[in-house]
Amino acid sequence: MTKGVVAEAAGPKDYVDEPPAPLLDWAELRKWSFYRAVIAEFVATLLFLYVTLATVIGHKKQAPCGGVGTLGIAWAFGGMIFVLVYCTAGISGGHINPAVTFGLFLARKVSLGRAVCYAVAQCLGAICGAGLAKGFMEVAYDALGGGANQVASAYSKGSALGAEIVGTFVLVYTVFSAIDPKRRARDAHVPVLVPLPVGFAVFVVHLATIPITGTSINPARSFGAAVIYNHKEAWVEQWIFWVGPFIGAALAAAYHQFVLRALAVKSLGSFRSFPPN
Amino acid sequence: MTKGVVAEAAGPKDYVDEPPAPLLDWAELRKWSFYRAVIAEFVATLLFLYVTLATVIGHKKQAPCGGVGTLGIAWAFGGMIFVLVYCTAGISGGHINPAVTFGLFLARKVSLGRAVCYAVAQCLGAICGAGLAKGFMEVAYDALGGGANQVASAYSKGSALGAEIVGTFVLVYTVFSAIDPKRRARDAHVPVLVPLPVGFAVFVVHLATIPITGTSINPARSFGAAVIYNHKEAWVEQWIFWVGPFIGAALAAAYHQFVLRALAVKSLGSFRSFPPN
Amino acid sequence: MTKGVVAEAAGPKDYVDEPPAPLLDWAELRKWSFYRAVIAEFVATLLFLYVTLATVIGHKKQAPCGGVGTLGIAWAFGGMIFVLVYCTAGISGGHINPAVTFGLFLARKVSLGRAVCYAVAQCLGAICGAGLAKGFMEVAYDALGGGANQVASAYSKGSALGAEIVGTFVLVYTVFSAIDPKRRARDAHVPVLVPLPVGFAVFVVHLATIPITGTSINPARSFGAAVIYNHKEAWVEQWIFWVGPFIGAALAAAYHQFVLRALAVKSLGSFRSFPPN
Amino acid sequence: MTKGVVAEAAGPKDYVDEPPAPLLDWAELRKWSFYRAVIAEFVATLLFLYVTLATVIGHKKQAPCGGVGTLGIAWAFGGMIFVLVYCTAGISGGHINPAVTFGLFLARKVSLGRAVCYAVAQCLGAICGAGLAKGFMEVAYDALGGGANQVASAYSKGSALGAEIVGTFVLVYTVFSAIDPKRRARDAHVPVLVPLPVGFAVFVVHLATIPITGTSINPARSFGAAVIYNHKEAWVEQWIFWVGPFIGAALAAAYHQFVLRALAVKSLGSFRSFPPN
Repeated sequence: MTKGVVAEAAGPKDYVDEPPAPLLDWAELRKWSFYRAVIAEFVATLLFLYVTLATVIGHKKQAPCGGVGTLGIAWAFGGMIFVLVYCTAGISGGHINPAVTFGLFLARKVSLGRAVCYAVAQCLGAICGAGLAKGFMEVAYDALGGGANQVASAYSKGSALGAEIVGTFVLVYTVFSAIDPKRRARDAHVPVLVPLPVGFAVFVVHLATIPITGTSINPARSFGAAVIYNHKEAWVEQWIFWVGPFIGAALAAAYHQFVLRALAVKSLGSFRSFPPN
Repeated sequence: MTKGVVAEAAGPKDYVDEPPAPLLDWAELRKWSFYRAVIAEFVATLLFLYVTLATVIGHKKQAPCGGVGTLGIAWAFGGMIFVLVYCTAGISGGHINPAVTFGLFLARKVSLGRAVCYAVAQCLGAICGAGLAKGFMEVAYDALGGGANQVASAYSKGSALGAEIVGTFVLVYTVFSAIDPKRRARDAHVPVLVPLPVGFAVFVVHLATIPITGTSINPARSFGAAVIYNHKEAWVEQWIFWVGPFIGAALAAAYHQFVLRALAVKSLGSFRSFPPN
Repeated sequence: MTKGVVAEAAGPKDYVDEPPAPLLDWAELRKWSFYRAVIAEFVATLLFLYVTLATVIGHKKQAPCGGVGTLGIAWAFGGMIFVLVYCTAGISGGHINPAVTFGLFLARKVSLGRAVCYAVAQCLGAICGAGLAKGFMEVAYDALGGGANQVASAYSKGSALGAEIVGTFVLVYTVFSAIDPKRRARDAHVPVLVPLPVGFAVFVVHLATIPITGTSINPARSFGAAVIYNHKEAWVEQWIFWVGPFIGAALAAAYHQFVLRALAVKSLGSFRSFPPN
Repeated sequence: MTKGVVAEAAGPKDYVDEPPAPLLDWAELRKWSFYRAVIAEFVATLLFLYVTLATVIGHKKQAPCGGVGTLGIAWAFGGMIFVLVYCTAGISGGHINPAVTFGLFLARKVSLGRAVCYAVAQCLGAICGAGLAKGFMEVAYDALGGGANQVASAYSKGSALGAEIVGTFVLVYTVFSAIDPKRRARDAHVPVLVPLPVGFAVFVVHLATIPITGTSINPARSFGAAVIYNHKEAWVEQWIFWVGPFIGAALAAAYHQFVLRALAVKSLGSFRSFPPN
């Protein structure tokens, strides 16, 4: 909690920045671990959509006060992300979200090929998960809106887009904070805890913006629900749930790389005499 | 969160797979630690059924909006699993669920003898715990359904079976992720955190499927409640809460062993030149 | 999660049991750290009663559906225990509850002098905390029952006593699991996580038994509320909230020492050839 | 959990107290890490106000029982503090609250210059975050009270001030417990867990005092909401949300430094022969 401890620790750097991921990495395509990672992203996003959409529809079926409530829905999204990031972090990095993949690609943490394959696997997994929820929920699924993201009637599209941008910023900023090699070097066991703040970030953003858009901050989640629900209104506003999260992820990547890691400052050559470590 | 760090760490294996547990292990039957583990499974499942069923009945007794809500019930199940896995992990492995024991047996993590003794202890503990809840709850217990699992009227048996399969998959997949020796070797203190994601997995699955079956994903929980409630409807559908969780656990074991740990690939001899580590 | 890893690790003991605390330890009375610990117990119990009773009264003041709900009350109790055990564990051991102190005294983890001083400090702190809540809540405090524990009209005194016994068993069993030196030796950083499962144990027990007695499992909590509320009904049943928690704590201590740590077996000299480690 | 282990560990001190921060530290003003820290406080407080105020307004817009509830609001405040302390602890210390900064300044953990710059950044961030919430929430924002802190009609100003003092005491006491170098030395990985108890402290205090003042315990939160809401009633009581948190933080700092760390005792020269370590 105290400043100073960390920042004043001068001397030789006690962490190593990984080299940026190559844009195209043909070698990784020959490894089983690459395909295993893509499969893990598919399965995780499938389970994510199934559990969260089943929670949404199940809640709406109960009389008022009978279901898990808006609070329970927010817990389903945040809790599943906690569990799934915990399970898949060591296999695929635990993205489960094209916006997270996009942010990490911009920061050169994953190659272009991996980013594209992940996003495709996430979208396919989301479709399958939503289909599973529809299959089990039967007629209630379509009758109750299919868990699709839509702008609530009291809000403008601009507000909805803004809410998606800031919400995704919170999520991707948390992800970047968690994987920072400076943090890893100094609190050696932090990776262990990564999934919990990431899950909580998803939870609190849902508390804030479920009334506005139902909260996406994850294009695969909106896309999968729209494909299975497949009503016109779910498609008309679909762009909001891609543009918003991608802008939010890009802003978070820029904030982390240029402000917190001070890449801009370092490359300008200023502040050389008192390294920002 | 970033891929690459882990998967690209080539070189000599930095983890040791335990040898598969023998099918029959006579030696363990002569150890006090074996009987202590069986007792610990009995006591933990007793406490699990008591707290969760008391929560369910207590909730139903209050006027609408007065009880802990469906969300509170989900917390009781998930929170107790967190606490009990924390308490018993070092004694018995903290299964508290025949489906978990079955999945770990399939993956050869426990012997057949241990698996059978655990399952018997879990079922006996569940009966005692449900009996305790009935004893304290008095007439309300039977009047309010005894916390027994049943397929809700709006759902087909097929949907209920499917929901139990996928729900148990989420739980047992989390368990396998938590105990993976590769994970243990690289994030040395992860075992410390095992109970939390396992508890959260139980919590979120309850959020999703309480409206469908009340959520079992644990045959001992359904069996204990049925024995004490002992109405015909609790027995007619009892098979769903054994078949579903066992299929889900088997699928999770297969996914972990054949896809994530790539046993199939390794045994086929392919991908030899770029070990999947 | 897997059995075996731990129990089969034979060879020399990798942990050290502390010697039992002396019944009377005059030396500790000359240390400032002893008085600091007593003060910390006083302050922690004061804050515990203030926050939890303010939550209870505040909830009852709102129209139905307006307050934090029974679930929110359970979170207040469990969350405060998590926070306060985290803050005081290194100072006093973080008991904040005469039943916990009693259980640890029975297991010879604290001296008699320390146990008595802690219990007195806890009761005084509870009175002050309840007084603070009454001071801020003004007339509403007495009108809404003062947060005192009472047996709900639908339950017998026997059920209430039983619920207190089992509830306290869950809590003190979790405490013993957390401080076991075997656990500490093998998962070196577990103490770090102690407060979280202890807090969750308090949380889930409240979910289950708030409808029965309001849940005590802590004699100081019941005593402090009764002193400040000071209506006849809060005193008539006061014995339940001392006898129940003390029996539960004694059972948990016995279970941990004689079954899980196998002291009985060891002292009988049997099983010598295959040490239960 | 057991006393004794820690306190009786005599011998040479196993921890190092950092020297007190200088009142004025000109050197830090020449470091990029100082400005980065101020920016991080600004951004974190902005995100904190945006998410929490959006949650409050979104909740009030729903029919009764439709929103996230008072419990969900408490989670939004506590959850965001958990996430943001996790993200910014390594950059700025993760204060996000002028009362926390004030308490740490009193204990000489930060310089005066840093404290003032942090407080200004926090207040500016709070204004921007509240503005963002108003922008997205449109007309509902002003109609539903703008999330501003006010003394509820059933309570006196004295009670409100007292509630703010004790609530902030709980928060700042948790912060001091978390950053204590004695704790860090002995449980080496505790810093990793700091954000969770701090977040929970904020959560439980909100459960207790939302009915009284809406809960501030953070002057920047009250100030930012008042600036954007800008109705007379939000300004009349504004002093309560500065005086209360500052008194609470000062009391917590004094409790930690003079009682728990025994600075008073040490400086009096007594107890020399049995150092309180």
